[in-house]
Amino acid sequence: MNIKGFTFSAVEAAIKKPGRTDLALIVSDVPAVAAAVFTTSSVKAAPVLLSAERITAGTAQALLVNSGNANACTGDNGMTAARETSRLVAEGLGINDDLLQVSSTGVIGVQMPLDRFTAAIPALIAGRSSGTFDDVARAIMTTDTFPKMESRCCQAGGVSYTVAGIAKGAGMIMPNMATMLSFIITDAAVDPAFLRQTFRDAVNSSFNAITVDGDMSTNDTCLIMANGMADNPVIAAGTDEARVFQTALAEVLLSLAKQIVKDGEGATKFVEIRVSGATDDADAKKAALAIANSSLVKTAFFGQDANWGRIFAAVGYSGAAVDQALLSLYFDDVCMANQGVFAGGDAEARGSEVLKQKEFRVNVNLGLGNGSATVYTSDLSHEYVSINADYRT
Amino acid sequence: MNIKGFTFSAVEAAIKKPGRTDLALIVSDVPAVAAAVFTTSSVKAAPVLLSAERITAGTAQALLVNSGNANACTGDNGMTAARETSRLVAEGLGINDDLLQVSSTGVIGVQMPLDRFTAAIPALIAGRSSGTFDDVARAIMTTDTFPKMESRCCQAGGVSYTVAGIAKGAGMIMPNMATMLSFIITDAAVDPAFLRQTFRDAVNSSFNAITVDGDMSTNDTCLIMANGMADNPVIAAGTDEARVFQTALAEVLLSLAKQIVKDGEGATKFVEIRVSGATDDADAKKAALAIANSSLVKTAFFGQDANWGRIFAAVGYSGAAVDQALLSLYFDDVCMANQGVFAGGDAEARGSEVLKQKEFRVNVNLGLGNGSATVYTSDLSHEYVSINADYRT
Repeated sequence: MNIKGFTFSAVEAAIKKPGRTDLALIVSDVPAVAAAVFTTSSVKAAPVLLSAERITAGTAQALLVNSGNANACTGDNGMTAARETSRLVAEGLGINDDLLQVSSTGVIGVQMPLDRFTAAIPALIAGRSSGTFDDVARAIMTTDTFPKMESRCCQAGGVSYTVAGIAKGAGMIMPNMATMLSFIITDAAVDPAFLRQTFRDAVNSSFNAITVDGDMSTNDTCLIMANGMADNPVIAAGTDEARVFQTALAEVLLSLAKQIVKDGEGATKFVEIRVSGATDDADAKKAALAIANSSLVKTAFFGQDANWGRIFAAVGYSGAAVDQALLSLYFDDVCMANQGVFAGGDAEARGSEVLKQKEFRVNVNLGLGNGSATVYTSDLSHEYVSINADYRT
Repeated sequence: MNIKGFTFSAVEAAIKKPGRTDLALIVSDVPAVAAAVFTTSSVKAAPVLLSAERITAGTAQALLVNSGNANACTGDNGMTAARETSRLVAEGLGINDDLLQVSSTGVIGVQMPLDRFTAAIPALIAGRSSGTFDDVARAIMTTDTFPKMESRCCQAGGVSYTVAGIAKGAGMIMPNMATMLSFIITDAAVDPAFLRQTFRDAVNSSFNAITVDGDMSTNDTCLIMANGMADNPVIAAGTDEARVFQTALAEVLLSLAKQIVKDGEGATKFVEIRVSGATDDADAKKAALAIANSSLVKTAFFGQDANWGRIFAAVGYSGAAVDQALLSLYFDDVCMANQGVFAGGDAEARGSEVLKQKEFRVNVNLGLGNGSATVYTSDLSHEYVSINADYRT
């Protein structure tokens, strides 16, 4: 993978448990066109507040990210820490503070160990000569069991460019944006307005369509930087080149989003929930999310129990317009229920076979209109409880 | 406990697993003033649809209830089964069909074994000579580990009367009304309009203030019958007698609601979530429910981990108006966080001690206004996952 004009670094700053990198840096050789989407929670971490303020200019050149401490619910001290760490890095890079995005993930409510940042930052900056994007993907992991990466190579005006992304997140995953961080970089030259719009669209159909446990976090951030160093003709809205870029970006984000669900805390299943026949798309998403977030549905998935009634129950309280006599439900291609009632025959046995797979699809048709939505989720297992009962110990 | 003019019966009709009663009957000697609150889900079980239609008359004389089969998502056959079982019982009792309420709880989507009802109903009707309210409380249990009962004795105009209730429900517990059934009987003479209003208020601050897993069911029903056989002067709104009745009813319902949470599937903790300082009561309830339904908060309770940041995170995405710099949080009397940040000192250690108790209180102050709400919930344990992964096996 060759993304022109980006360098990377990751070090161990002793913020997380020993033996794991926890502080990372992505730097573009030149200021990049940038856009970001942040958590919609009213309780926002200091780095989110700071980065949101800075990104309004539409430009960024570097990202400093740490794992092990979320710098959330840390008040004025937290904001001071975010500013101070960013100042140190910007100074080391010789760029303006305002071009530095900052991001944190980890435990909420613990003050940042500023001295450890100060001690580690020189090595972090020096490490850019040998670091990789993969190193950064590893450094941002918390309960993640594998690093999450995706990339696409494309052309614009005969010039090759790359869109690549990394992500972290395994629990507290819920639209919008969940406890997840994702950083996308591209060496393509992209029109700023088009980048913002296409990025927002791609986030909506990827990171805003996944849920592990229904919890939204204080730190969710998805950032894109396009530094233009591929030297392609600038990609602008409405062109063929725009459609190519859009597809590549959407694929990278959807792949990362799916990786997050597959790595959902304690997940043993990856489930695609498709709701169609809703009055409108918004209703379809309500119904899909209600199914995906139902603890009873998720434990049934874990138990490989074709308990389709729980899915109809979730649809019933979702808030979507529903006529129970029109509901139908499929597990993959097996019809479990039709016109609101059990399909009969060997549906139960065949449905259970579907649920024994590691990945399957749930299709619900509300029978009312043309609204549809797809959401990705995992099951709820013993392991989820174990991970989250003991997260800090 | 002496509730004049009510008889009870419970039999084993082989709807549930062998060795457990699963069909029960409550009969008043005379038609009773009655009111009911049902699930607000769009997917409603047949008995809910039938009972809701009948209760509009404001009168009921008997209740037929079964466990083991929810008669939900059963279509026209389900409605036929509900009507037919009710017809058989009404005939046996010599009363009009319309005076019979029907209620079901158990697995969703399985057709009712009508022949087993037919076979059991004669013994059910005959059994009224020796049955007790306690027998009914046991017969409606599904995953409940203990029967739930409460009663109060009061006086009106020098005449004693009793308010007594039973309930079932352990999972799928979520406002409004959850997978729970509750039946309240009183021999008091009560004005119908006052009964309806005071009953609805009592439900709102009890059954609509509990959540185990955030799942609302297709079958939730809370029914009250007041047969007037204590022969007291009719209790009407605005009197001292009304206030006494209101208090007794509220206490019975709140006790039953708390028993449901304590028996929450896999629950090891009983937690009272109080939110104050909200812009209004509705906002306070939003915040309290977000905390109570957060899988991350609930697993932290299970792990006895004073992870207060997860509580602020839940408040943040609850939709309530929040200024994170004004948030404070107490576990019982231990201040964990103030003005949005960790309280420091030995708060962590002392907070963990609070969470080691079987019951404790979480107090969140939003610092904005006078809105407040209280919600009761349980933790999320390994046992919850086990129960619900294997519910039907």
